[in-house]
Amino acid sequence: MNQRMPDWLVHRAAAMPDTEALVTEEGELTYRDLDDRVQVAAGGLRALGVQPGDRVALVATNSLQFVVAVHAVARTGAVLVPINIRLTAAEVASQLARVHPSIILCDEMHAALAHEAAGLAELSGVVGLPIAGAPPADPVVTHGPNEDLCIIHTSGTTGAARGAVLTYGNFWASAAGSAYNLGVLPGDRWLACMPLFHVGGLSILLRSAIYGTSAVVHPGFDAGRVARAIREDRISLLSVVATMLQRILDEDPGSAPDHLRAVLVGGGPVPPDLLRRALERGYPVVQTYGLTECASQVTTLSPADATRRLGSAGKPLVTTEVRVDAEAGQPGEILVRGPIVMAGYYDDTAATARAIRDGWFHTGDIGRLDDDGFLTILDRRDDLIVSGGENVYPAEVEAALLAHPAISGAAVVGLSDAQWGQVVAAGIVAEGEVSLADIQGALKGRLASYKMPRVIARLDSLPTTSSGKTQRHLVREILARNRDGETG
Amino acid sequence: MNQRMPDWLVHRAAAMPDTEALVTEEGELTYRDLDDRVQVAAGGLRALGVQPGDRVALVATNSLQFVVAVHAVARTGAVLVPINIRLTAAEVASQLARVHPSIILCDEMHAALAHEAAGLAELSGVVGLPIAGAPPADPVVTHGPNEDLCIIHTSGTTGAARGAVLTYGNFWASAAGSAYNLGVLPGDRWLACMPLFHVGGLSILLRSAIYGTSAVVHPGFDAGRVARAIREDRISLLSVVATMLQRILDEDPGSAPDHLRAVLVGGGPVPPDLLRRALERGYPVVQTYGLTECASQVTTLSPADATRRLGSAGKPLVTTEVRVDAEAGQPGEILVRGPIVMAGYYDDTAATARAIRDGWFHTGDIGRLDDDGFLTILDRRDDLIVSGGENVYPAEVEAALLAHPAISGAAVVGLSDAQWGQVVAAGIVAEGEVSLADIQGALKGRLASYKMPRVIARLDSLPTTSSGKTQRHLVREILARNRDGETG
Repeated sequence: MNQRMPDWLVHRAAAMPDTEALVTEEGELTYRDLDDRVQVAAGGLRALGVQPGDRVALVATNSLQFVVAVHAVARTGAVLVPINIRLTAAEVASQLARVHPSIILCDEMHAALAHEAAGLAELSGVVGLPIAGAPPADPVVTHGPNEDLCIIHTSGTTGAARGAVLTYGNFWASAAGSAYNLGVLPGDRWLACMPLFHVGGLSILLRSAIYGTSAVVHPGFDAGRVARAIREDRISLLSVVATMLQRILDEDPGSAPDHLRAVLVGGGPVPPDLLRRALERGYPVVQTYGLTECASQVTTLSPADATRRLGSAGKPLVTTEVRVDAEAGQPGEILVRGPIVMAGYYDDTAATARAIRDGWFHTGDIGRLDDDGFLTILDRRDDLIVSGGENVYPAEVEAALLAHPAISGAAVVGLSDAQWGQVVAAGIVAEGEVSLADIQGALKGRLASYKMPRVIARLDSLPTTSSGKTQRHLVREILARNRDGETG
Repeated sequence: MNQRMPDWLVHRAAAMPDTEALVTEEGELTYRDLDDRVQVAAGGLRALGVQPGDRVALVATNSLQFVVAVHAVARTGAVLVPINIRLTAAEVASQLARVHPSIILCDEMHAALAHEAAGLAELSGVVGLPIAGAPPADPVVTHGPNEDLCIIHTSGTTGAARGAVLTYGNFWASAAGSAYNLGVLPGDRWLACMPLFHVGGLSILLRSAIYGTSAVVHPGFDAGRVARAIREDRISLLSVVATMLQRILDEDPGSAPDHLRAVLVGGGPVPPDLLRRALERGYPVVQTYGLTECASQVTTLSPADATRRLGSAGKPLVTTEVRVDAEAGQPGEILVRGPIVMAGYYDDTAATARAIRDGWFHTGDIGRLDDDGFLTILDRRDDLIVSGGENVYPAEVEAALLAHPAISGAAVVGLSDAQWGQVVAAGIVAEGEVSLADIQGALKGRLASYKMPRVIARLDSLPTTSSGKTQRHLVREILARNRDGETG
C-alpha cells in the first residue's frame, strides 16, 4: 500500500481555497491565503539553503508567523524543532546543540534568546521572522507516514532534554483518534491559547489542516479574551489545563454556548470542585492524558463519565492500545502502542530502545486499569511535576540546586496547588543561612521560571532508602505538612 | 512507526459498550451487543476450521447476520469475500473458484445459489448463517494497515471478474477522507440501503465502527421506508444512487430534516432536474466518484458547488491524489494515488502491475481536470455502464450474446435512462429472426438480470475502426436515435 498523502495544507488550499483556515491577531486567513504565505516563506527558507531532512528551529510565541513557519518548514521537506520560549538561553542551547538546526527562526521578541542560545551552542544561522522568497521550484507536496515532521523536546529522568521525533503518520493518527472521539464538522474552530511549541498546541494546527477546519490562535492565555472568543468567535473546541478552565469560568459567569462541543483539559485530573462547576454550567469537559512522545492525546474521559469516574484519565482513543505492566487491576507502568507513538528520541538510539520495546512505549508513568477499562494515573513518570501545563522534572531542578555552593542535598517535588495544579517545592540540606530569595536569585538564568522552586524547606538530611535512593514521597509529605501548618 | 491498531469493533466495545452500533430489522444493538454476537460467530468460524489468511465467502442480503459475519471474519484473521447476490450461479462460481474460500457463508434466501455455485466451482464448505461457537481462544484483536480485510470482485475489460484486495489501511484512510469532508459526530447514523456486498455499502459498516457511530441497515432499497427512516430514525448520512434519490423525493414531498447532514450520491452525476429539485428541498446532495479499487469515495462535489459545476465529480478527498494523464485541461485517463488504493487484484500479478504503476492506480476512466481542480468524468473505463448503481461491463454481455448460435456480432452500450441512470442496450448482427425475448431467454442463468439488455437493435454490420475495433460510441448513437424515434 502506498501510504504517501498530499501535504495537508496543499490539499486544503486546492480543495477549499476560500474556506477559513486560521484566525490570529492579524485577522482571518483562508486556506488559499495561508498557502500563499507558506509558499513565500518556504521560498525564503530554500533561499537560505534549507534542504529536505534539515532541522529548522523555531523560537517564537504564538502568532501568524509561527503557523506560517510550521507549514513552510514542511514545504521544504525539513523537520521543525519548536523551542519552548520559557527556557533559559542555556537550556535552549543544549537543545540546539543536539539537533544542529541549519536555521534558527525567531520572532522579534525572542531574537535575543535565540542569538544567545545559538552563541552558547556555537551555531550560526539565526534568522528573524517573517522570511520571504520566490515560491520554491521544488515544494514538497506529499509526505509518507514515516517521514519526520518535528522534534519536540521533553525532559528526561536525568534532567537533560531529549527530542521526541514525531512523524506525519503520528499526527495523522492522532488527528483521527481525536476526530472519532470529539467529532469534526466543516466550519469547526479550535482555539489554541496554549503554546504552539508544545505538542498540545502544535497538534491543533496540524489537525485543523488535516480536517480542513479553522484554528484560532491567541498569542497566549488571557482568560477574559478566551471567554469572549468562545462566545463571539463561535469556538467549537478548546484545549486548556485545569487552571485555565478555572479562570475562564471566573471570567464568564454564564452557561457554555451550544457551539462549544468540547473543552479538552490536559495536565492531570480536573479538581472535583472545578469539574462540578464546569459541568453544571454546561461546559463539555473532556479530560485527557497525553504525552509528547504520543503526539498528544492517549486517553480521554468524557463529560458523561467525568463524575462517575472522578480522577480517572478515561479510555484510549481508537488509534491506541494502552496496558499496564502489572497484574489485572494493580498499579504498574503505563505502556502505549499504536501509530501515535513517536519514531524515537533524536540521535539517541539507547534512550529509544529503552523507551520503545516491541512497539510499546514505556511512559514511565504509573497507573491502574479498572475492570471497565478506565485508566487512572497514579504517579507521573520520574515524579514529574505538572505546573500550569508545563512539565517539570525534579532531577533537573535538583541538579541546579546542588550547583549552589551552600547546598549539599536536594529533593524536588510537586505540591498540589489550586491555581497551578502543582507548584515546585524543594527540600534542601544546606550549610549556613540560605533564603528562598537567595536560591531563586542563584538559579535565575539557569532554570526557566516555571521550574523555579516556590517553596523551600531545610531538612537535616534527606530521607533515603536502604540503597541510598532519595524517597521523594517522604519529602513531599514533610513539605505538605509544613505548608498546611502555615496556612491552617 | 508501529502502525498496528486495535480492531475497530473490539475497541468500540471496550471504549463505548453502551453506545448504539447498529440498527437492523431485528432492532438496535449496542457495541457490546454486537461484539458479543461477533465473538460467538467468530467462535463458530474457528470451530469450522477457519484460520488467519483464509478466505471466507459471504452470500447474503443486508441483515444483522451480514454485519456480524463481516466482523466475525476479521476476528478470525480471515479475509472476507462478499458476493454479489444478483449474479447467476455460474458467475458466483467463477469468483469462488478464483479465491478458494475455506467456507462459504450464506443466508437462507441464498442457500440454493451458494450451493449451486459451490458445486459448479467444485468446492464444499457451504454453511448457513447464523453460526455459533464458544468465543475463540485466539481472537484477532489488532490489525496492521497492510493486512487484507476483503476481496471485492469487479468486472474487468475482458468480462471476467477480478478480485480487488482491500486492506485495513485502505478502509482506515477512506474513513478519514470521508470524515474530514462530510464531518463525523458522536451519535451519527449512516443509513445503508444499498447492498453491503458492494464497497459502497461495506464501507458504511466499517467506517461506523471506526468512528464509533451507528449504521442503520435496510434489507434493500424501499423508497418509502428510506424516506420514513430519514425522519423517524434521525438519519445523519445516507448513501444512494441518483435513481434512489429521485424515488425518495417522490415519496416524501417535504424539506430535508436538519439532522440529515449529507446524501452521498454515487454512480454518475445527478441529472440537473433532480439535483435542482433536491437542493431546493434542502437535501445536502454530495455527488461522489468512487471505485471498488479505491475503497469507495475518491472525489466528491459539495452541495455548494453542485449547481456551479454541473456534471462534475468534484475534488479529491484529503487522502487522495488525482491526476489526468494528459496535457493540462485535456481529457485523459484518471489516475489515483494514496492509501485508499487497493493492494492489488487477487492472485493476478499481471493485472495488478498493469493497474498500479508507480503507486498510481490507472482507473481506465476518462476525465478532465479544470483549472480549479474539479474533475469531470467523461467516459467510464472500458465503456462501463452503470445501471441502478450496478456496474455492467459491455465485454461480458457481448461475450454472452455471441454465445447465442444466431448472433455473429454484438456491441453493448449504455443508454441514458431517467430511472436507472443507464440501461443496457445491444446492437447485434444476427442470422434469421431473433427477438429480444428470445435473447433474454437464452441469457437467463448466464447473466445477472441487471446485465440483461433491455434494448436490442439489429445492425447489418458493426461499425469498426480501420484496425477492426468496434466503435461502441457509434453503436450508442444508432441505438439512441432508434429509441428517440420510437418515443419521439
